[in-house]
Amino acid sequence: MSQILCPSLASVVAGIAPIDPRYTVEAQLRLDSLTKPIGSLGRLEDIAAQMFAIFSGRIPLPLRRAVYVFAADHGVTAEGVSAYPREVTAQMVRNFVAGGAAISVLARLHNVQLTVVDVGVDAEFDPAPGLCRMKVRRGSGNMLRESALTDKDLTAAIEAGIRLAQAASEQGQTLVAVGEMGIGNTTSASAIAAVLTKRQVGEVTGRGAGLDPAGRDRKLNVLRRSLKRHFGTPVENPEPLEILRCVGGLEIAAMTGFILCAAANRIAVVCDGFISTSAAAIAHGLAPEVGGYLLAGHCSEEPGHRHLLQHIGLTPILKLGMRLGEGTGAVLAMPLIESSVRLLTEMATFSSAGVSTASE
Amino acid sequence: MSQILCPSLASVVAGIAPIDPRYTVEAQLRLDSLTKPIGSLGRLEDIAAQMFAIFSGRIPLPLRRAVYVFAADHGVTAEGVSAYPREVTAQMVRNFVAGGAAISVLARLHNVQLTVVDVGVDAEFDPAPGLCRMKVRRGSGNMLRESALTDKDLTAAIEAGIRLAQAASEQGQTLVAVGEMGIGNTTSASAIAAVLTKRQVGEVTGRGAGLDPAGRDRKLNVLRRSLKRHFGTPVENPEPLEILRCVGGLEIAAMTGFILCAAANRIAVVCDGFISTSAAAIAHGLAPEVGGYLLAGHCSEEPGHRHLLQHIGLTPILKLGMRLGEGTGAVLAMPLIESSVRLLTEMATFSSAGVSTASE
Repeated sequence: MSQILCPSLASVVAGIAPIDPRYTVEAQLRLDSLTKPIGSLGRLEDIAAQMFAIFSGRIPLPLRRAVYVFAADHGVTAEGVSAYPREVTAQMVRNFVAGGAAISVLARLHNVQLTVVDVGVDAEFDPAPGLCRMKVRRGSGNMLRESALTDKDLTAAIEAGIRLAQAASEQGQTLVAVGEMGIGNTTSASAIAAVLTKRQVGEVTGRGAGLDPAGRDRKLNVLRRSLKRHFGTPVENPEPLEILRCVGGLEIAAMTGFILCAAANRIAVVCDGFISTSAAAIAHGLAPEVGGYLLAGHCSEEPGHRHLLQHIGLTPILKLGMRLGEGTGAVLAMPLIESSVRLLTEMATFSSAGVSTASE
Repeated sequence: MSQILCPSLASVVAGIAPIDPRYTVEAQLRLDSLTKPIGSLGRLEDIAAQMFAIFSGRIPLPLRRAVYVFAADHGVTAEGVSAYPREVTAQMVRNFVAGGAAISVLARLHNVQLTVVDVGVDAEFDPAPGLCRMKVRRGSGNMLRESALTDKDLTAAIEAGIRLAQAASEQGQTLVAVGEMGIGNTTSASAIAAVLTKRQVGEVTGRGAGLDPAGRDRKLNVLRRSLKRHFGTPVENPEPLEILRCVGGLEIAAMTGFILCAAANRIAVVCDGFISTSAAAIAHGLAPEVGGYLLAGHCSEEPGHRHLLQHIGLTPILKLGMRLGEGTGAVLAMPLIESSVRLLTEMATFSSAGVSTASE
């Protein structure tokens, strides 16, 4: 499927303006005038400069933080690729909304608005505050036997993400995290990572939520056969949307649309773990300018995550050995991102504070 | 000087109870029952378990956060070991109190009470909110020519730290960061690190606030000669307080007393950069049980910091390429520490949320 078949996506992609490097330079000049040794804030300086550029030199403070957790089921779970049964996706959606999941706790603590998005869970949910019901279909197809998504599913899921990012912009959100829940979705992310980074399946496939070695072997086998089925051997160089259609998932497609539309609206987007980063990598494949709006909250324990981050050119903020998803690593990075911006905008300069500078 | 010469220190050290590993085990059992894959919160699980043990299973929430920035001047600045002139210590103290320094900005953002402590700045300060005037002397002696501290100075500085930690406990503070300001104090920290970790001066000495290569060579030379003067060649195995007296500083001595007394009062202490960690290493040398109460906020760019952390057995939470001091890296880690505790105490369990567990 080419991009032209999804007209709203084409217009979103066309609307993404590259961030202007003049703002990055301006931010660095300002950082160098602040009462601290040059460069001593390390990575926070890069983040502050990126945020300054995203908002074209006028960062709206306080940042309005939100996290979107996209949930969907995966047909490939029929092949035994996950340590957890498929119904956990729906159970966790209820847990998110009830406030008992990790992301619920972190969003509450860090003043981050939590929205859970059902784009494809194999269950029906009653209306609830914080739950967006945008189901496209009750789970994707089994990538080993068929395309994970039809053209129509793919378009609908991408458009769901686009509509949500549009609403986020209308609500004035400025710092959004993208997370997910979907039993089986590390299998999709590994497939995407293998194709995009041209790596062997073994290099980009981990234990997911907790497979034992035999389970991981099964997952590797499913992945190799699925990639061969859809893309041949050796793997051709498929278009990003074609990868998404064949081996993606409804939540990954929705995240892709969300990320692209957020960037088109000049919102800073924090990627979470392996799966949300696989969506970011697809988005980056469709529109490299999106990279300027992306921050990597953390690097997870899933081995493919690191490779995807490198592929996009993102440096993770945290490295805490996490592998939970849900947006948790992204939300944990938000206080650091906000810190970087506050330092840039609120610190005194050497001259305003009457502090002597370093000797030359 | 032996510990017995500082009677209040001896009683503080005697009052530090080792944390009880049964609480760590209990916390891990609880973590394993929460709605997430086993171990998927990575380092946050270790931190939560440590906090649970520090507070003997009853973590008081919300945590009451504070940061203490200990400031002093150093006689060794006469040898040209810093890129910045000595008067910057006093100028930065005024900047901290006025709210324009990096630590001021971060403390404000993260709801951390900031106290600046003059234990030895070579300037007089007017009374100001948030400034504790506990000056022992206007700067330490030049370690190249004499002991940095007299017995009396050392005792007074340690006791200042003890009094502050006692007050912190009386105010109900539960999570305190230890930071510092003192032009020339990376030279003291390098000297301490070299002696404690038995490493070559070159391995534990960096550019400080921004020395050029010639400046660093000068600093190395001063360090080698100072260590030889005080401890012989090869360096003997001096007692921790003897190291502090010969090559320490007033703020490092005060931090040492503060850390020990905070631990005696079961307060969680977050170390910041190289200098505050050098104080933690001295404290650890005097009372290894203090380690149970210590968290490492970050690992800085100063090469000796990593070695000191390893020496104490601490794993840094953040690694952001910072090298600013002031408590900045410690305060930045506080939202993560609080996150770990909230996850432990607020997440639903598999049974309470009705979520299926992994297949065996």
